[in-house]
Amino acid sequence: MGGAAGSGEPGESGADARTAGEVLAGYLHRQSADFLRSLRLHRESGSDAQGAGEAAALLRSAARRISATLYTFQPLTDEAWADQLRAELGWLAGALAREHACAARRDRLMAALQRLTTPPANAPAADLDAESALSAGAARAGALLDRQLTLARTRAHSAALQALGSSRFHAVADSVAVLASEAPLTHATADVPAAEALPQLAEQAHRRLTEAVTALPLSRAGHPYNADALAADHRQDAPWHQARMLVRLSRYAQEVIAPGYDDPRLADAGRALERHRDAAEAAAAASAAARTPRIAPATAYALGVLHADQRHEVEAARFTFGRVWLSHARGGGRYDR
Amino acid sequence: MGGAAGSGEPGESGADARTAGEVLAGYLHRQSADFLRSLRLHRESGSDAQGAGEAAALLRSAARRISATLYTFQPLTDEAWADQLRAELGWLAGALAREHACAARRDRLMAALQRLTTPPANAPAADLDAESALSAGAARAGALLDRQLTLARTRAHSAALQALGSSRFHAVADSVAVLASEAPLTHATADVPAAEALPQLAEQAHRRLTEAVTALPLSRAGHPYNADALAADHRQDAPWHQARMLVRLSRYAQEVIAPGYDDPRLADAGRALERHRDAAEAAAAASAAARTPRIAPATAYALGVLHADQRHEVEAARFTFGRVWLSHARGGGRYDR
Repeated sequence: MGGAAGSGEPGESGADARTAGEVLAGYLHRQSADFLRSLRLHRESGSDAQGAGEAAALLRSAARRISATLYTFQPLTDEAWADQLRAELGWLAGALAREHACAARRDRLMAALQRLTTPPANAPAADLDAESALSAGAARAGALLDRQLTLARTRAHSAALQALGSSRFHAVADSVAVLASEAPLTHATADVPAAEALPQLAEQAHRRLTEAVTALPLSRAGHPYNADALAADHRQDAPWHQARMLVRLSRYAQEVIAPGYDDPRLADAGRALERHRDAAEAAAAASAAARTPRIAPATAYALGVLHADQRHEVEAARFTFGRVWLSHARGGGRYDR
Repeated sequence: MGGAAGSGEPGESGADARTAGEVLAGYLHRQSADFLRSLRLHRESGSDAQGAGEAAALLRSAARRISATLYTFQPLTDEAWADQLRAELGWLAGALAREHACAARRDRLMAALQRLTTPPANAPAADLDAESALSAGAARAGALLDRQLTLARTRAHSAALQALGSSRFHAVADSVAVLASEAPLTHATADVPAAEALPQLAEQAHRRLTEAVTALPLSRAGHPYNADALAADHRQDAPWHQARMLVRLSRYAQEVIAPGYDDPRLADAGRALERHRDAAEAAAAASAAARTPRIAPATAYALGVLHADQRHEVEAARFTFGRVWLSHARGGGRYDR
């Protein structure tokens, strides 16, 4: 690696002078270093739960970026090696993500219950009768969800620790370490200028996203209060989840070719789709809790309200995503929420 | 009454040449005739439930218009007489409205349950497990609501028949019949030109509406998915219900001074606020049904979903009302939904 790339912080025009191999190897090298550093931080965190959580988040972030890069720039990599590593990184990220997801889901549902049972500031003080049914049920629903999600989180925590101590994990870490020194790229990439090979593949990733978004019912989602997401069926969520992953691939591909730049539209779109996913999973957790045997009707009622509330969050996130996406398509105007 | 007013269908400019007394008396005369005709239709409907329902709707419509006119144009009427009649018309309209409201509420809730349990057209057919909890509960919730609202409707029907047979009602009908021949107006109105006295009072009614709407949290309601209406407290609905009544007063006042013209904005605003009221009452019915002793948790869960769904309809109606209202304030642009 020569010139600007050697600094580890190449400027936006730095890619032009380098080969595709140098740019890819540089990016994978940095992610590999982050991966190994976060692993060390995680080991050293001991009983510091927050430190361990941050280290795990960094580890997942690096794993996602490595995996995405190997996928998007596949024609330039040793395909068999890359596919194998991607599968293992997927396993690892899944094992590490669950604990965080359980904690976030619990927080989201507790906040929603709080919001649903807090009277608006301008409400008169009398006549709380009609509300008390929800309030009583909400307290019990909250306790039930807290219990279930805390248990799930504890289990996920053990599973993550077990994964990190497994020989399977050590093999993944070894493969990632290889990326730091010699990224498994095809010989051809050593000679092709970066500006010739990389933008084209990043563009392809973006095109896959654009095509997936075109297939989404965006015009319907653009009508506020269309009540689509509350319909009984959550399988309609799948194409939106798919779009979330494609947004991520597109963002990480941009990171490779223009390190300093984060497209605000893609960032906003990604956030909306993450909110979509979080709300959908929280709704499913409320629904699952309602199937707990022998709960009181008031508890079930509160869980029904909560389920519908989170499904409306799903609908709201689709609306937001549509605004973000279409505001750009129309030439980058502003958008609400 | 002379000139155009004698035809019963004065043109928009007809009011100009007549006195305030002539115009008011003419309007009250027509409403009184509608009232008495619908009363006859109701008596003749016998076992024709649909005919009876239509007659009752016409009766209520005439009662509302008479009452609104006596209120808005109060300075021109015999106040004590008008106040007494308005109180009695309020009692009558309330007694007659309940049966229709129960039927409409039942239909609204059944339609919502149907919508909530019907998978979207594009959904795959497998894996219905997660849904079956809601579906089972929804069927039982539907049966419970059907039972409760049909019972309430039957009671309201008996109460309405009892009201129509009471001596109190006969006194109301006698007072309304008086309007057909000699409306109790102040002597001064006989001499004042209609164009001088009436628009000013109609404008006052409109100003009361405008002031009430200004106090509504319209800018908040204009943000889709603000989740305001789902908060635990339904007392925040009151100012919106008040606005609904003021829209009606403003519309009926316009009817008096410009019979052929129905302001489309007021009509749309009124429809949005009627949907607001209907959804709020349906949500309350779902919530009340959930407090039925010994219901199954699955039933309570479905009622919770239904409650939240209708409260989101409340939120959506506020959003629509805001669009309608503000689109006009900005100079009459278009608005969605």
